[in-house]
Amino acid sequence: VHRSMVSTQKSSSVRKHKRRRGNWGGSFMLFFLYSSSSALHSLTRGFTHSPTSSNIARRFGSKICWASPSPSQILDAVDSLKVDPDGFMERIRENNEPGMTPDFLPFFVDGLSLGHIKPSFAEHLRRFPDVFAVTSDAVSLSPELASLEDRSNAVDKATRALAAEGVIQGWRDEPYAVKPSFLAAPSLHVDRGAAACFGVQAWGVHVNGYVDGGPGEGLLMWVAERSATKPNYPGMLDHLVAGGQPAGLSALENVVKECGEEAGVPAALARGARPVGVVSYAAVRPKGLARETIFCYDLPLPRDFIPVAADGEVARFRRLPLERVAALVSATRAVKPNCNLVLIDFLLRHGHLTPDNCPAYEALAAGLRAPPPGCFAPN
Amino acid sequence: VHRSMVSTQKSSSVRKHKRRRGNWGGSFMLFFLYSSSSALHSLTRGFTHSPTSSNIARRFGSKICWASPSPSQILDAVDSLKVDPDGFMERIRENNEPGMTPDFLPFFVDGLSLGHIKPSFAEHLRRFPDVFAVTSDAVSLSPELASLEDRSNAVDKATRALAAEGVIQGWRDEPYAVKPSFLAAPSLHVDRGAAACFGVQAWGVHVNGYVDGGPGEGLLMWVAERSATKPNYPGMLDHLVAGGQPAGLSALENVVKECGEEAGVPAALARGARPVGVVSYAAVRPKGLARETIFCYDLPLPRDFIPVAADGEVARFRRLPLERVAALVSATRAVKPNCNLVLIDFLLRHGHLTPDNCPAYEALAAGLRAPPPGCFAPN
Repeated sequence: VHRSMVSTQKSSSVRKHKRRRGNWGGSFMLFFLYSSSSALHSLTRGFTHSPTSSNIARRFGSKICWASPSPSQILDAVDSLKVDPDGFMERIRENNEPGMTPDFLPFFVDGLSLGHIKPSFAEHLRRFPDVFAVTSDAVSLSPELASLEDRSNAVDKATRALAAEGVIQGWRDEPYAVKPSFLAAPSLHVDRGAAACFGVQAWGVHVNGYVDGGPGEGLLMWVAERSATKPNYPGMLDHLVAGGQPAGLSALENVVKECGEEAGVPAALARGARPVGVVSYAAVRPKGLARETIFCYDLPLPRDFIPVAADGEVARFRRLPLERVAALVSATRAVKPNCNLVLIDFLLRHGHLTPDNCPAYEALAAGLRAPPPGCFAPN
Repeated sequence: VHRSMVSTQKSSSVRKHKRRRGNWGGSFMLFFLYSSSSALHSLTRGFTHSPTSSNIARRFGSKICWASPSPSQILDAVDSLKVDPDGFMERIRENNEPGMTPDFLPFFVDGLSLGHIKPSFAEHLRRFPDVFAVTSDAVSLSPELASLEDRSNAVDKATRALAAEGVIQGWRDEPYAVKPSFLAAPSLHVDRGAAACFGVQAWGVHVNGYVDGGPGEGLLMWVAERSATKPNYPGMLDHLVAGGQPAGLSALENVVKECGEEAGVPAALARGARPVGVVSYAAVRPKGLARETIFCYDLPLPRDFIPVAADGEVARFRRLPLERVAALVSATRAVKPNCNLVLIDFLLRHGHLTPDNCPAYEALAAGLRAPPPGCFAPN
């Protein structure tokens, strides 16, 4: 009963959301005719795509084709953007896009639930009964496979066979550690290209680089514009520093490394980044359930610090008043989807959004931490 | 499938948790025989009660009878307490105690899910078919009752009848506003004593009053010891300021008012309290599902500020290094249960607990926001 309620509410809000979106298709040229803030506001809310389900994949998949105005154009006109009070919650919903919501099966390794598998992919795994036990309720790795090495070898053989047939696409030849939490020992290695089919958890770090302008000015935040040649989310707006978590580094070591590579932040300064919590999301993608946990860091910077795009992944940096960042997040889709979550978290933690000025305050806070996977299942 | 998984995991962790607790019953006298930190540590982890389900109600219900050492004695010996890495997650579980997990029915008013009702209470509501529509899936207020006044009058008549029969206990003669979110207009008023039977949402504010001692010393936090004569949680440790949210005040106005009444914080200083987010919890109590959302505030205080218990609700205040607060939260049950959540949130936001030093980091962050009510249902 309760579970079906949750999914129904979710789907209906998504449908409503899509309907609203649909009204703006084709009006992008108006951006060049009107320069008033309300015209920009209206246009940026609808500038992505027509609302079919394949477009959801296009919008948040690995490649995005931008309609005008581009994120870069929006950034140039940011001073005329207004905050959209409903937009914050829309950004959270987009990151937790339920899509087609197949009834995912939990994936168990040695009694731990380490992923979620689409039923159609589970059918393929039935062909390897020595490796996977597939029931209507769950997929479990054979208990006979007791060591990390045995498990990884057996799964590697099965997944390579499926990759050769084209069932698994995008083989990477790079092992990915599957584990129940960030500091846990891995239970299994799968190829990074196959990881999404098992719906395993990913981890990343995002750094809010900001300057405290004092009582009069408030906070100013550094925003990066991603290079147009990046394979994922080219040209979109990003944090000062953000990245996936590689094996063998602590989260703070990763922050310090990425700070140096992506923004030229000296290590001594970067080590002042303070861990301030977690945002997480779960989205249905073509391959399976994508789940990511982002460790958020606040990095106060000196007023005279200027970031430098050291590795060519950033086209330019800009420093914006927090109010402008709130407008970008809420009224546009110019910001890389998961960065929106980290920025909404920042706006909540720094008192920019408050219980008294934001009707969705509680819903935003709840929405920044992904619900348990069961809540993604349909009724 | 998924739903039952969630509940099963929850129940089994609670069972394990209870088993572990059970070993410490009756050893309290040892506290007076040993003064080493490890003895205090061991004892404080087990000083409450034997692990039967009726004791859960006693522990977190409105009255608590303390075994030795009391929170006051623990506070006096706080310098010898050690942090218990597992304790933070235990505190979160205790606030979300699933107890007997009846299969709650959602309570709908005009299409909004505003509460959760125990099936046994729903059976009583069947006797008022003009007011409540009770099915095996949900309880809905009659759609004929369209205004706040009509709904409240009809529900008042039905609940008064049930109170007269003793089905509803603790009638308060004080209307309580039922609404879908903090800033929403109320959909219904019920008596405060009946609200728990409908499992409606409550709101409160908690203020982390702290002093930044600078790079050498770190943060120091003010902790209140509740008066021994308070009806709820007498003698337990509390925030500088905390309170339920009355109607007609904004959250910040409530913070300023409570700051003045409970701790003698001047209004000009209290208005500097920064809203920093939300913690929420949901616990099965004898009457029904108790759900509360707490708006958390950080209030940096001058080093020379000394709080004053203006209204007699606090026996004494103490200022403790953050490490001591972390030990109190993790290794004892001396802190009022819901304050533990706000303090764990503070430890996460201020970088005391980090992704690299805390194995439960992600679980703590997720646990501070109550899961959707469906996840509380049994399989």
